[in-house]
Amino acid sequence: MRKLQPREMDRAAPEVRHPIRVVVENVRSAFNVGSILRTADALGLEEVILTGYTPGGDHPRVHKAALGAQDSVPWVRVDTVAEAVRRAREAGCSVAALEITDEPIRVAELQAGHFPLCLVVGNEVDGVSDEALALCDMAIEIPQFGEKHSLNVAVAFGVAGYDLVRRYRSLTGARD
Amino acid sequence: MRKLQPREMDRAAPEVRHPIRVVVENVRSAFNVGSILRTADALGLEEVILTGYTPGGDHPRVHKAALGAQDSVPWVRVDTVAEAVRRAREAGCSVAALEITDEPIRVAELQAGHFPLCLVVGNEVDGVSDEALALCDMAIEIPQFGEKHSLNVAVAFGVAGYDLVRRYRSLTGARD
Repeated sequence: MRKLQPREMDRAAPEVRHPIRVVVENVRSAFNVGSILRTADALGLEEVILTGYTPGGDHPRVHKAALGAQDSVPWVRVDTVAEAVRRAREAGCSVAALEITDEPIRVAELQAGHFPLCLVVGNEVDGVSDEALALCDMAIEIPQFGEKHSLNVAVAFGVAGYDLVRRYRSLTGARD
Repeated sequence: MRKLQPREMDRAAPEVRHPIRVVVENVRSAFNVGSILRTADALGLEEVILTGYTPGGDHPRVHKAALGAQDSVPWVRVDTVAEAVRRAREAGCSVAALEITDEPIRVAELQAGHFPLCLVVGNEVDGVSDEALALCDMAIEIPQFGEKHSLNVAVAFGVAGYDLVRRYRSLTGARD
């Protein structure tokens, strides 16, 4: 068993992207935004929409943290979360917050009609804003088995993003 | 639909932890180590084993990034990855690297006999060391659909950790 060298990995751009977008609202840390762009590239998502005070993919510190993913996954910056959600809706998306609410939905409950889907993730401390939550159709929750309920936002997006792609591929019969 | 307040969330310590450990080898960033501790708490893992030049859970910057998870998930620091793997084996674990290799295994292929299981994650740039890989029984790979193959280590651990817990719970018939 040996590690593959980068040149041995399939590094082609995805032929078809998964019909999933993510809105990144008021995420302050360039490191987290860079991580999110790397994950969105790995998942072959359609678009990353950065909004509020989230730094853009062209911010020098995001650029450093994204390790090139800012060039391989489509991203856009818009001023307000209302504009971000409108953009996703115009692309036909249903809109889900990644947040702990009184009406939690698990990814496994999603049906084909929920895709294309746009996931909204929020600030490191406060999560998705009340304003953004009011614009969402539903809220997706990640199971938690511990005491703290405090996943890092880039980790939470990674877990939920992989779940969404797996669910979409399973609903559409894609080979895994 | 409204966000839950922290006091509305179930914040009890897990009664039974999932029989999964993680070795964190040569992860330089205190922010990543803190994120990994938060995820390990959320997953109800048995133990986090920090080794090499990974800072300990009592390092001030880890402490700050872990947001209390350093007190809610068991962690230990040992000097070498050999010692870390030995510790996991003495607890009965099979040992899996989280790494891209020429013999990839998907989490869905794991069977009940693979648990308890210890996952080894490695350095932000170089991944799991060759020395550590030689000590592992297998290597688990996360599906990638993009160009970069460069998930952040804390994100990769989150995705694989949630997959492992889901697989373990499914094999043991736990309600999800």
